[in-house]
Amino acid sequence: MPAQSMDQLVALCKRRGFIFQTNEIYGGLQGLYDYGPLGVELKENLKKSWWTKMVYSRDDVEGLDAAILTNKKVLKYSGHEDTFTDPLVDCKDCNNRMREDHIKDSKCLHCGSSNLTEPRPFNLMFKTNIGPVSDDDSYAYLRPETAQQIFTNFKNVVDATSKTIPFGIAQIGKAFRNEITPRNFIFRVREFEQMELEFFVKKGNDEEWHKYWVEERINWWVEQGIEKDNIEVLNVPQEELSHYSKATVDLMYKFPHGVEELEGIANRTDFDLGSHSKNQDELDIDAKINKNKESNARLAVQDIETKAWEVPYVIEPSAGVDRGVLAILNESYKEETLENGKKRVVLAIKPHLAPIKAAIIPIKKNDSTIVDFSKDVKDGLQKLGLGRIVLENTGNIGKSYRKHDEIGTPVCITIDFDTLNDRTVTVRNRDTMEQQRVDVQDLKDLLKDLLLQ
Amino acid sequence: MPAQSMDQLVALCKRRGFIFQTNEIYGGLQGLYDYGPLGVELKENLKKSWWTKMVYSRDDVEGLDAAILTNKKVLKYSGHEDTFTDPLVDCKDCNNRMREDHIKDSKCLHCGSSNLTEPRPFNLMFKTNIGPVSDDDSYAYLRPETAQQIFTNFKNVVDATSKTIPFGIAQIGKAFRNEITPRNFIFRVREFEQMELEFFVKKGNDEEWHKYWVEERINWWVEQGIEKDNIEVLNVPQEELSHYSKATVDLMYKFPHGVEELEGIANRTDFDLGSHSKNQDELDIDAKINKNKESNARLAVQDIETKAWEVPYVIEPSAGVDRGVLAILNESYKEETLENGKKRVVLAIKPHLAPIKAAIIPIKKNDSTIVDFSKDVKDGLQKLGLGRIVLENTGNIGKSYRKHDEIGTPVCITIDFDTLNDRTVTVRNRDTMEQQRVDVQDLKDLLKDLLLQ
Repeated sequence: MPAQSMDQLVALCKRRGFIFQTNEIYGGLQGLYDYGPLGVELKENLKKSWWTKMVYSRDDVEGLDAAILTNKKVLKYSGHEDTFTDPLVDCKDCNNRMREDHIKDSKCLHCGSSNLTEPRPFNLMFKTNIGPVSDDDSYAYLRPETAQQIFTNFKNVVDATSKTIPFGIAQIGKAFRNEITPRNFIFRVREFEQMELEFFVKKGNDEEWHKYWVEERINWWVEQGIEKDNIEVLNVPQEELSHYSKATVDLMYKFPHGVEELEGIANRTDFDLGSHSKNQDELDIDAKINKNKESNARLAVQDIETKAWEVPYVIEPSAGVDRGVLAILNESYKEETLENGKKRVVLAIKPHLAPIKAAIIPIKKNDSTIVDFSKDVKDGLQKLGLGRIVLENTGNIGKSYRKHDEIGTPVCITIDFDTLNDRTVTVRNRDTMEQQRVDVQDLKDLLKDLLLQ
Repeated sequence: MPAQSMDQLVALCKRRGFIFQTNEIYGGLQGLYDYGPLGVELKENLKKSWWTKMVYSRDDVEGLDAAILTNKKVLKYSGHEDTFTDPLVDCKDCNNRMREDHIKDSKCLHCGSSNLTEPRPFNLMFKTNIGPVSDDDSYAYLRPETAQQIFTNFKNVVDATSKTIPFGIAQIGKAFRNEITPRNFIFRVREFEQMELEFFVKKGNDEEWHKYWVEERINWWVEQGIEKDNIEVLNVPQEELSHYSKATVDLMYKFPHGVEELEGIANRTDFDLGSHSKNQDELDIDAKINKNKESNARLAVQDIETKAWEVPYVIEPSAGVDRGVLAILNESYKEETLENGKKRVVLAIKPHLAPIKAAIIPIKKNDSTIVDFSKDVKDGLQKLGLGRIVLENTGNIGKSYRKHDEIGTPVCITIDFDTLNDRTVTVRNRDTMEQQRVDVQDLKDLLKDLLLQ
């Protein structure tokens, strides 16, 4: 049973330290959020799981971590300067500005006036002046997606790694969009993180690879704990496709605020490499592209047999990290009524994503023998390198269990006076609430079984 | 023997895919770099090592990952709007702009004219317009350091975790500074990554904690492979201290271009929390701060005995990720002359930082039995979750060894025809170049011994 409402999640996130509003002490800044002590672990674990699947477990994908500040020429040839816009109108009576497509009955959303300007395109990219001179020409963009920095590095990566198609370049990082109306918590924000793979294939093999990646990505989300039935596969209608896309499949998830996109998998054709390449006339580019006389690199690969230079097609699975975090929180949030009639909140999150892997709880907070023993157990488990282990030294076992249920810690390990004699500890399972006595030297294997496949 | 010159490192970084110039295909963008397939692994490993030491291995530090876009009020009260500046002059003859402190003999660096303007303060922060309205007031900053977002979250973290001083908040993330003259590869750039801890202590204990953190941080850098003798501890002279600092110790490293700061450890007093707090008059703040009527939070803690509200002092170890990467590349780069007179380049990097932990090399690239066996070995080792393992299927053992020496892979594991019979493989050590025959089922322990403490 997922969360009933976004409010439940927002409240849990703030109370337990998953996610805070940015600069809250100054009234915040719309569409921006900070990840707290638990949120940073959950987010990192999700990113690590993606990277492990998309880079480490394969032999045909390389990683990248490029700059956020982007040369304006990149966004000129990618089409973002021209097309990455929302239509805005101003109200001549109350001076408010709003999206044209949000207005019904041609009346201002704020004062109801129909005295509105014609719609004007509003570019969603953030600009900033770069270098010591503040003229109109000295600006760069904050990247609106990580993808473009992958395309501009295509030749560098090929030269350094000798990769041949089919192969991909994966990147995780921040992107920025000046959304007119950011909303729905971390779903639509102005600063967000993407996990993008650009997978380069031979033209003609693109449709097969597109299908392959749709399957792969659904399977990955299921491995993260999203029920397969809660993912809706949407073939984006032809008339709604982006300018670069031949076909796009959206993975839609039932967020607390409605069914919306969690990830998109697009067949971008040869638009991207074609757009950023020099000598376009010598290449047989299918996509409709703008002439590029500023690039200094040929973004193509040579066919081994024909020796012809070909611009690869691109399949792009593009997932939102923050949307992923929201989906996983929503999916794993449960309110249970126990046998004694009491309620508990439990975050039934997959162990590899849990912010804290195990809590070590000394039964008495001021007993130095117990506490020192607990610290030793913590240090030993921490050294396995499997994620964060905490010492929970409040002296209140019941309260510690409730807290760790709510934040999704898979196991609580309690050290008591018997431990000092027989070296056994109580291990409590988050989901079943069952407790068992375990020899302290078996804890490492227990944790490894929980966290490694 | 570290690298002889920056050029050696820059060339290696480009050739092997550690670091590329951003948007190189459009002539680049000054002071910006992208991390390639190997660079992203090295950088992530360094960050992970820091996080493990500063967060996981302790019981008194919590993590954070806050937004880059920052409310201008934060940078107003932090002092950045007023003081984060360089003095610039313009040449009235050639219109070039330059830093005043770079000019000798009062003459333009470009044309030699002495017809220069008076120096004006130039703020190093990047600004960007946020929201749909483009007026002079609707802007935010790209954070010039991660620290401020820690201070603004102080109360949120305390409320969510019930931490009491002394405790710290750690953050790794990007920061941005519009440097007038970015230079020295990834040493002085406009977009960079920081690893910052803000450690909150009781006034009076600050000097002791300052000493503690200087020691801790030196030890950590030594664990990353920096020779202790190559770190110079500089007590920043009183007259050069930042406005917030009572004392700062810089860890100076001999980079290829000269001895410069790798990390700074500052005693920031109660300046930061005092500056961002409401009701400052009711708090006994030592630092010289500006009146703050816009904050809605009291950033103080209550003394358990006296019940008085006290503003904690802050000790800040602040390290540069990119500078760390550069120092580690420099420190581990070696050119060796072998017994046969040939030379080899080897990156003698610590295994936990190595971009690739092990290369699995099939002796014959087209033998499917050998290659499949190699893939199984790779998959088995990859599942330990210890970092990237690659299948190096070029069929050229010598070339593979040279490559993996140069990129710092600690071990190469070769699968040959004997392996199919006796299940032993050849393991070659990067540093000694010694080869030994190892049972395939002992590889996991070998890798764990290499990578886990």
